[in-house]
Amino acid sequence: MSNPEIEAQLAPLRERVQEQGNLVRELKAKGAPEIDVKKAVAELKARKKLLEDKELALTPSVVSFDRAKMEDLLKRRFFYDQSFAIYGGITGQYDFGPMGCALKSNILALWRQYFALEEQMLEVDCSILTPEPVLKASGHVERFADLMVKDVKTGECFRLDHLIKQALEKLSKAKDATPALQAECEDIIIKLDGLNKQELAGVLAKYNIKSPLTGNDLTEPIEFNLMFATQIGPTGLVKGFLRPETAQGIFVNFKRLLEFNQGKLPFAVAQIGNSFRNEISPRSGLIRVREFTMAEIEHFCDPVLKDHPKFGNIKSEKLTLYSACNQMDGKSAAQVQIGEAVASKLVANETLGYYMARIQQFLLAIGIKPECLRFRQHMSNEMAHYACDCWDAEILTSYGWVECVGCADRSAYDLGQHTAATGVRLVAEKRLPAPKTVEVSEIVPNKQALGKTFKKEAKNITDALAKLSLEEITKVEEQLSGDGQYKLTTADGQSHELGKDTISVKHSTKTVHVEEFIPSVVEPSFGIGRIMYSLLEHSFQCRDGDEQRCYFTLPPLVAPIKCSILPLSNNTDFQPYTQKLSSALTKAELSHKVDDSSGSIGRRYARTDEIAIPYGITVDFDTLKEPHTVTLRDRNTMKQVRVGLEEVVGVVKDLATARTTWEKVTEQYPLFEQQEASK
Amino acid sequence: MSNPEIEAQLAPLRERVQEQGNLVRELKAKGAPEIDVKKAVAELKARKKLLEDKELALTPSVVSFDRAKMEDLLKRRFFYDQSFAIYGGITGQYDFGPMGCALKSNILALWRQYFALEEQMLEVDCSILTPEPVLKASGHVERFADLMVKDVKTGECFRLDHLIKQALEKLSKAKDATPALQAECEDIIIKLDGLNKQELAGVLAKYNIKSPLTGNDLTEPIEFNLMFATQIGPTGLVKGFLRPETAQGIFVNFKRLLEFNQGKLPFAVAQIGNSFRNEISPRSGLIRVREFTMAEIEHFCDPVLKDHPKFGNIKSEKLTLYSACNQMDGKSAAQVQIGEAVASKLVANETLGYYMARIQQFLLAIGIKPECLRFRQHMSNEMAHYACDCWDAEILTSYGWVECVGCADRSAYDLGQHTAATGVRLVAEKRLPAPKTVEVSEIVPNKQALGKTFKKEAKNITDALAKLSLEEITKVEEQLSGDGQYKLTTADGQSHELGKDTISVKHSTKTVHVEEFIPSVVEPSFGIGRIMYSLLEHSFQCRDGDEQRCYFTLPPLVAPIKCSILPLSNNTDFQPYTQKLSSALTKAELSHKVDDSSGSIGRRYARTDEIAIPYGITVDFDTLKEPHTVTLRDRNTMKQVRVGLEEVVGVVKDLATARTTWEKVTEQYPLFEQQEASK
Repeated sequence: MSNPEIEAQLAPLRERVQEQGNLVRELKAKGAPEIDVKKAVAELKARKKLLEDKELALTPSVVSFDRAKMEDLLKRRFFYDQSFAIYGGITGQYDFGPMGCALKSNILALWRQYFALEEQMLEVDCSILTPEPVLKASGHVERFADLMVKDVKTGECFRLDHLIKQALEKLSKAKDATPALQAECEDIIIKLDGLNKQELAGVLAKYNIKSPLTGNDLTEPIEFNLMFATQIGPTGLVKGFLRPETAQGIFVNFKRLLEFNQGKLPFAVAQIGNSFRNEISPRSGLIRVREFTMAEIEHFCDPVLKDHPKFGNIKSEKLTLYSACNQMDGKSAAQVQIGEAVASKLVANETLGYYMARIQQFLLAIGIKPECLRFRQHMSNEMAHYACDCWDAEILTSYGWVECVGCADRSAYDLGQHTAATGVRLVAEKRLPAPKTVEVSEIVPNKQALGKTFKKEAKNITDALAKLSLEEITKVEEQLSGDGQYKLTTADGQSHELGKDTISVKHSTKTVHVEEFIPSVVEPSFGIGRIMYSLLEHSFQCRDGDEQRCYFTLPPLVAPIKCSILPLSNNTDFQPYTQKLSSALTKAELSHKVDDSSGSIGRRYARTDEIAIPYGITVDFDTLKEPHTVTLRDRNTMKQVRVGLEEVVGVVKDLATARTTWEKVTEQYPLFEQQEASK
Repeated sequence: MSNPEIEAQLAPLRERVQEQGNLVRELKAKGAPEIDVKKAVAELKARKKLLEDKELALTPSVVSFDRAKMEDLLKRRFFYDQSFAIYGGITGQYDFGPMGCALKSNILALWRQYFALEEQMLEVDCSILTPEPVLKASGHVERFADLMVKDVKTGECFRLDHLIKQALEKLSKAKDATPALQAECEDIIIKLDGLNKQELAGVLAKYNIKSPLTGNDLTEPIEFNLMFATQIGPTGLVKGFLRPETAQGIFVNFKRLLEFNQGKLPFAVAQIGNSFRNEISPRSGLIRVREFTMAEIEHFCDPVLKDHPKFGNIKSEKLTLYSACNQMDGKSAAQVQIGEAVASKLVANETLGYYMARIQQFLLAIGIKPECLRFRQHMSNEMAHYACDCWDAEILTSYGWVECVGCADRSAYDLGQHTAATGVRLVAEKRLPAPKTVEVSEIVPNKQALGKTFKKEAKNITDALAKLSLEEITKVEEQLSGDGQYKLTTADGQSHELGKDTISVKHSTKTVHVEEFIPSVVEPSFGIGRIMYSLLEHSFQCRDGDEQRCYFTLPPLVAPIKCSILPLSNNTDFQPYTQKLSSALTKAELSHKVDDSSGSIGRRYARTDEIAIPYGITVDFDTLKEPHTVTLRDRNTMKQVRVGLEEVVGVVKDLATARTTWEKVTEQYPLFEQQEASK
């Protein structure tokens, strides 16, 4: 981004963002009406998007990447492909073939090592099927929805924002489109993300948008919940959903986990598992799918103690931070030491900063390009209502910057919601510096009177009374001493008038040594499919001068198969050596592939390059002579060395576990040049 | 089972089984009506069950096992527990806490090593959400059901066989029950498994069975499909299910996998993943759940070449085989070398035998007791209609013998079904010994005439014609030359009359070099939750003389945490050593737990024993002196040795990866006796 020519082109766009950013700040500062702020923010986002699109259009790596070519290879060698294709397939669902599955496993194994093991987290494995009340409490039943419209005749569904974008693009490209109409369309497309249901309905009507498939009329916009619904058990009465995230399974187990940790905070819980979102019309390959693997961490801590004991280890790590402030000022992301970012309060606290640094270390370890990674801070208007700071690790791909890891301080929101819904107090305790005396107010039900008046409802009433908060008890007391009646709503939604004859409020004092509090949660949440897709893009290469020979430069640590064994020809003399090497690699727990098919050695190397095998052992005629040797080939450089038969497995093991590098190996063993030339 | 006293008690029961087994054989041999055979088989099963119950009642380990005590520990230390308990919980769903999750991960990691890596399998990871047509083809939509009845007023559902069992048990225990009634009830309970829908309805009516909860009437028996249904996408038109097994994902990808394997057979595909069954009223803890992890293998091979290249490696492995024949004769299971079992055709082929031996090796490696493992052959009447031989690895638990791994030769059933449903030929090819000339018959549609007569239906008709098999083409030819008309049903279910003017049959010859065939499938299918539960039972122990100190003897390879670090007291001098050990263990990728809480060392050992930590390192005052040493304690024997600080992590690594044993460690290092005594 420091290229002065590019900067010159971007300068006016940056200025326009900053101008609008300042307007938003001004409106907020003077307490302008919400609707004005919202409009200004939508315009801000639009200008930001123009800036970003221009930046990407000027980024050579993004412009030159040939996605179709990579996707062809991924499909041909079955890294992954559409599920149930022989039945016509389902959009947004993918099956991982042998290479995709192994790559995913290796990424997850490394994730476990980086997080679960190194940070001594508690890893759990919770149910996917989730009963409705849990997701009501979490807010997903109410809010987890996208807008769609339906073809009134065929019932075909379209995601509203995608549909409008497509329709307006078509409109503005039509022959008879006036420059004014073109500008209008472009303006709406840019602002789409910021429009609400009503505004979008207005756009539909104004441009008389019809179904793109049939030309039929469309319904009004409908909110469509993205969770898959089902029934648990045979009665049809227990409604459930496939979880839309793994996090809730951790929150509902908070008490058990705190107890497992002997009541002590902070502690972190990790979970790897599948989640499901019934996308309206998924596109963009692995980036937007209906079924996906997440790896989530919930770090529970005291809300007033968000420092991290290991922060010192990472505090000089440099991260590319794209702060909310820079976004509003039209500035670029900046390289900042995480220690400074926390010290200057740009990043809210040490715990959040610690995880951001660890996320970066992990992503770089698996092979994400550092120049294509940034942390973007949510602007206050896009932050979930419960979060107090949120940074997304975004990775640059041919789809633009893709959110791959969210890292949010969710405060006490989730535990608070489940406590409110269940009455089970999901809290931790801490010892007070000194014992203190507190006033206790409690409601004393007159059980006999309640029973007489309310019969079998009495139990629901006493249950509801027991759950009242201190504020509510104060209100009860006020109302009882006022008109003498308190109106109580029980769990089943019924209201009851309670008088002084049935309840009273009792005050007392007690000495307490500990204080209860709802822990805060810092949540790093990894989208494994998106990370994997980005990694494939970043590691896709074609050989200089031979555009048909493509391969992946996946680091040995995550490469699906660590090593190939290729006998030079199908001469049976090679067999015992091939078998011996295969056994030795198995014993060393190294995945490998024997390719003893016919075909030149060069062609077979190319095949192993396609599936990202980093090292190849070739058994040739020199192997048969004493001292027995083989060649070891490096995928990235295509260089080969000659290594003793007995040593080679150890060398591959060291390479595959990153205990040595190819450079060091070439210093240690003689280069070998023959086979690759003879193809 | 060789105890003569026990055998004497079992002898009459064995005789009754054999008598009935002979009857079944006789009926089959003389081609008796199916209903007679079925009745005789039901009686055979009843007698087998009596024999097995008696055998178990005489087995001391099963009789003395205290399940409640183990379950209390599992719950208290959160190995696993009911999901969503704070919301009232859902039966048949469990969340795995840190220890359960780690145990499960370790079992799966070892499984990957035993099968995916060592056998060079192709591991895949397919979608859970499955569209209806796939599960129609597999037979699950039609046949995957249990019988239930509903309370006519409340709608409460009961699994029919469980309900009847419970009702009759109650009836026969009533004060006024006559011996005749008691015998009658017992007889029905034993035969329950063999009764069909009508017969069960008869039992309901005869004993006037009502809802056990309300006393209300019950509906007639209803077939309830055990798959969870949902809709994929927003239209509500694409019906889908959560997969009831992982296998179908492999079958629908067969073509891609065969191609990945360069067209060569045999090859095996592995998949680990969750499956779902909407059990009517799940009980029995982890044995019967609604959501569970399976690890399945589909080994594809030529139906006439089921030998296995590595069979020699395992052929002298001894397995406890409970053959169909022995089951019918009332005999016990017998120890047989798998090589002999295949040679004598008791086990159908080498591939099946190879997997049985490998399954046993795996189960013993994770810690299943050899005396509690047997392979039970399905009797011909209980085998799925597509299987040609099937052996279940059954593990003895307090629930009786539990099927934990199925190992079936499924022949060509699944690939055939999906081929028939999609028209995509899921076949492999093999080169013929010599090229041969074959007659080819094909239908030649007169496209012009078809178009004229059938308009837009013409395409469906040509598609349907292209899918006709050779037999069908012969039929077309017969009918055309007969009455001149052929009635064709298209994919959308419509019928059309086709005459000579629209189609004709053409014969030609061609030379073929390869032959197409549908591969056979051998399927080992592991229920991970059941294996894990059995393993917990087998490894549950209480200390001699202290029934309150319980622990699990899980082998180090699968133990959730490999090592604990316990400073003798909270003396701060110990801290640098504790931290250094923790870092070194992390670097060696060894999961560990630091317990620096107060409490005597003995009590802390007991806490680590409860969660099955096999080794404990204690930092004590001698650690502070040079040469720095620590003690290393073994969970099972409670013995300790004194080891150098620098060496101890290496020793634990070797122990945890089974490269050495505790016995060898005690020979190498001096025993240490002090701390455990001083608790």
